[in-house]
Parts: sequence; C-alpha cells; structure tokens
Amino acid sequence: GSHVDTVPAPGLYDGALGVLCGIECARAFAEAGYPGRHPLELIAFSDEEGSVTMGTWGSRALTAALLDSERHELSCEDSALRQTLAQSERLIRQLGMCVDPTPLEELAPTRAAAYLELHIEQGALLKGLGAPTGAVTGIVGVNRYLVTLRGVAGHAGTVPMRERRNDVVWRVARLVHSYWSYVESFGPDAVMNIGDIDIHPGSFNVIPDRAALSVEFRSLHVPILEELERRLLDVAGSLGGEVEVVGRDKPVSLAPEVREATLRAAAALDVACAEIPSWAGHDAMSFAPFMPTGMVFVRNTTGASHCEQEAADRDDIQAGLELLAASVMTLDAAQA
Amino acid sequence: GSHVDTVPAPGLYDGALGVLCGIECARAFAEAGYPGRHPLELIAFSDEEGSVTMGTWGSRALTAALLDSERHELSCEDSALRQTLAQSERLIRQLGMCVDPTPLEELAPTRAAAYLELHIEQGALLKGLGAPTGAVTGIVGVNRYLVTLRGVAGHAGTVPMRERRNDVVWRVARLVHSYWSYVESFGPDAVMNIGDIDIHPGSFNVIPDRAALSVEFRSLHVPILEELERRLLDVAGSLGGEVEVVGRDKPVSLAPEVREATLRAAAALDVACAEIPSWAGHDAMSFAPFMPTGMVFVRNTTGASHCEQEAADRDDIQAGLELLAASVMTLDAAQA
Repeated sequence: GSHVDTVPAPGLYDGALGVLCGIECARAFAEAGYPGRHPLELIAFSDEEGSVTMGTWGSRALTAALLDSERHELSCEDSALRQTLAQSERLIRQLGMCVDPTPLEELAPTRAAAYLELHIEQGALLKGLGAPTGAVTGIVGVNRYLVTLRGVAGHAGTVPMRERRNDVVWRVARLVHSYWSYVESFGPDAVMNIGDIDIHPGSFNVIPDRAALSVEFRSLHVPILEELERRLLDVAGSLGGEVEVVGRDKPVSLAPEVREATLRAAAALDVACAEIPSWAGHDAMSFAPFMPTGMVFVRNTTGASHCEQEAADRDDIQAGLELLAASVMTLDAAQA
Repeated sequence: GSHVDTVPAPGLYDGALGVLCGIECARAFAEAGYPGRHPLELIAFSDEEGSVTMGTWGSRALTAALLDSERHELSCEDSALRQTLAQSERLIRQLGMCVDPTPLEELAPTRAAAYLELHIEQGALLKGLGAPTGAVTGIVGVNRYLVTLRGVAGHAGTVPMRERRNDVVWRVARLVHSYWSYVESFGPDAVMNIGDIDIHPGSFNVIPDRAALSVEFRSLHVPILEELERRLLDVAGSLGGEVEVVGRDKPVSLAPEVREATLRAAAALDVACAEIPSWAGHDAMSFAPFMPTGMVFVRNTTGASHCEQEAADRDDIQAGLELLAASVMTLDAAQA
C-alpha cells in the first residue's frame, strides 16, 4: 500500500505511484492466475502528509498508533477531525464505494506476514548511484516544532531603531542564522527545514507582535535528534521564544528479511537495486513494529519531491513494479 | 479633518480623535455664535492607512494627487477599488447620509486659506518632553517595497544541508540581518519596519520556493531615503531577490505660519506645546503643496500606536481640542 493525499503544489508520483503499482500488481497476479500462499491486501492510506493530523494517519489508525490528542479529537462530536472524516465518507460513497465501519481495534493487522510499500525516492541517492530501484534500510526520525516569538506591536515609523532590537523579525533572523549553522555542523547526518514563518498582524505600517516558525529536522540517529531538540530549546529560549512540540517520529529500521527478498528478486530480474535509507517518512513506519516491513524505491530523475519537478522515467517505474511483484512472490514463497 | 479608517488590531484614537475633535470644534463655534471670517469645513478622509490603496487616498483624491495606477483602477469597471467604493457608497446611504457626485477636479481645494489636522502622536516625543500638545514641523518620507526571493521547492527531508544555502528562509535571515544593521547606522535619522514575511507554500515538510518581505523605511531627509533604497536594491540583488517599489511618499515640511498660529494660541491658553516632527504619514501631506498646512498633536501616554496600547489622557485631549479651536480662530483672524 501507499497513500493518495499530497502536499500543496505537489508532484505526480508521491504517493499515488505506490497505490497504482499495487493495483497493477494485484491485476497481474489475477490475470496470471498466480495462486499465492497468503491473502494479498492493497491499502490506499489517508493523510500520510499530515494536512489534517500529524501525518501517516491512516496507517497509524490501522496499527492503533494514534496519538492521545488524535484519539481525543476522534471522540469529540464537533472536532475538525470528525468533520473531515465525515466529508471523506460522503465523498467515498459518492464515488460508489463503501465505508467499512469495522472498529479500529479489530483491524490491527498483527498477524500479517509482511508489509511492502513502493514509493518514488524523494531525494537523489538512486540518481547518484545510477540505480533505477532501491531497497530501503531505514527511515529517518522526524521532529516538528512551532517556535513562537512575541514582541510589542507598534507604529512602523515612530519607534526609534535603538528600541527595535526586540523586534520579532530581527529575532527570527537571529534564530534562523544561529540554528541553521548548528544543524549544518552535523554534515550529512541531519537536515532541517523551516517551512513557514507566520507574522502577525502582517502589515507594512505595523511593527509585528508575533512570529511563528515551523521548524522540522530529521536524522537516522536518536542522539542527534535529541541534541537538535535541546539546542532548539536553548536558541529559542535565549531569544525569549516558546517552543511547542508538534510531533516526534522516531527513526525506524526496516526488516532485513524483506530487504533480502527484494534484493534476491532484483538479482533474478537483473534490475539494479541499491540499499539506501529514506530521508522521508512513510506509512511503512507504522507497520515496522508489528511485522516484517520493507520498501521499494523508484529512482527520481530530478531528485525533487513535494513539488512539480518530481519526475520518474517509465522504464524505472516498470522496473520498480516488476521488483514489487517479484518481492511479494519471494516473500509469499518464503514466509510460513 | 482627519480619518476614521484604521489598521488591523488598532488603538482607539488614530485617527478618529481628529474627526471627533473637528466635530466638537464646529459644534462649539456654532453654540458660541462665533462669526468667523472664513467658511469652516470638516472632512473625514477615507483609506488613510492604505488598506485599499497606497494610503491617504481620500486626501490625495481631493487634491488630485492620485497615482496613475489608482486612476487606472478607478477607470476599470470591475476593479477592486471600484467595488470597494461602491460598497462604501451603499454603507453611507444606509447610514442616512448622501454621497456627493461632484467630479474630483472641481473639489481640488486650491483656494482654501489653511488646512489643520489634529492627531494623537504616534510616538513618544511629547511624552519625553512632558508636553500635552505639539505643533508639527514636518512629516517623514515613507518608502515601501516588496522584496521577493525565489528558490527551489523540494522535500523537507531529502535535500542535504549543503544544498540548502540557497534556501529562501536562509536568505531572508541574511537580508534582515544585513539590512537592519545598515539602517541602524543612521541612528535617529531613519527607521525601518519589516511588517510581513510571506512564505510559499508554507508547510512543515516542503522546502519553500518563495519568500516575500514587506519592507518600509522612513526619514525626514531625501538623501537618506535615496541611500536606503540604493542599499536595499544592492542587498536584495546580492541575494538574488527582486524589489518592487510599492510606494514613495516624500518628506513634507509644514507651514511655519500655521505652526506660529498654534504656538501663539498655546501661549494664550497657557498650554505647553512642543515643536516636533511626525514620524507617521498623515492626510496633511496631501494639502501641504496647495495651502498653508499644519498639525496639532495630542500626547500619547504609552507612545504606542497602531496597536491596542495606544492611549491618551482626557486632559490632554481637552488641551488639544482647545488648541485646535484657538488655532483655527487665530488663523481665521490672521488670513485674508
């Protein structure tokens, strides 16, 4: 399975490619009359990108890994989450499909033999290695924070510059400058994104009284994530800012036996397949604690993701699809 | 006259105080049976703050000083400006008042004897000087710019830090840091405000591809304004940014004879009145080229403006009102 929701101004493939390849895989098995020792289930997850919740919502719901805050929201009659779910249900019914009211607890797929997800690579590692496909070793941890700086509103003209050293925009610049350099000191082991800066009230002639920064960082290593958080609290604190933890997703190792199955399938198909980590989060993270879990990556010819420049060659997609099918068959043959 | 529109999250006085004091002044003259050698006209201007146009729209319309772009907008059937005007007209009629369709050209008040405006001070100069009222010497020039930085969108996790030195947020921090220090080097002769930073698309997990900063600076001195603009173009240019000039209001000197009338009236009333500049723009700027123009300031007890903390004492307002009335009478007696 994979997901069909996406970010604003997105590319074509993330994550619809995984769902389409899953459908194609199931169709091919059916046409070929492939018997299969295990039942095959295809899932299109909702809200992987986190537009409504903290992300990977569908897969976390299925694996009973929802946050307490999300459970609470689900239990509130008028919550935005409940309303969004109701809208989704109406849309699904309009499309002629049905909504399964099975309680979440009964869905928890603890007895599945394996979980496998195909996704376009969201970076340029495969491109750099010259391989059309990849078998994923692990998924980085992702921490998200909202850093809020508060200041004193005022008239743009009448406050002298010497009194403006507490201006929220000036402090935003210091925070970005200081923290950016710190994250860079970890070299290739960490990345940071400041995805949004919200200034209030946001007018030419008003000194702003509030700035909020959306800060996210990622690493494969727990100690680095902890160190990055400690420093963010320090830097923001020294500038009088408040830090709200929006979410923490721990790094996840994927199952060596699933990766082995993919690598053997690739060898049999004569498709080049590199072992690489994923710098992006995926629904696979939700399943890794419960069952052998793996991912197949398809080369991204631009390395760009979460934007229109995201691209994949037809041949690479074909190779990824064949590798997905062969991996499933290998796992099906191997697992009890 | 003064204005009744205001900024988001505003204070109580800017600029309704001037309109109310004008009404009170006219009422007092009428009750006292003050004969007057000149007709007295009170005006409540629209869009002084620039929420629809570049600001001081009502007074610029009256003095035929609209920008070409605004004239063009006025001539377009479906323009936002036309629609806003139509809304305003409907509201005015709903309130039981009438809309005068006199063409702008015929309104240009080139033969008025003087223009006088009362306003709460938008800074803390009177507070510092211990004076309840002020006679304004001149109004700073205000330049406004929209600085846009463009970058490459991408996935928050998969682009290594070493490739992010072109990130728009990183460049915003450099621009703010560099330009802020430069403006500070002019000491009390210039101020800058960065009122808004708009990040696109503005999501935790997307590397932004565009940042736009609302930059405004002010000075009483034309060479400083020119130097500040030159440097802004340099700094933004060196970071690959584009600069759009949103507007330039030149510094304006107010008429010594009107100021003298106010100071003489203050002496006669025994009200302390300090000669100070205005760091904020006012409708008075529109009239200064056409007729003797002056302003009376009322002390701001917090020095805060364009925010809720703006405050004035009743006694200071009373003093300002009396000074306004006495100034008008002094001018009325002096002018032919």
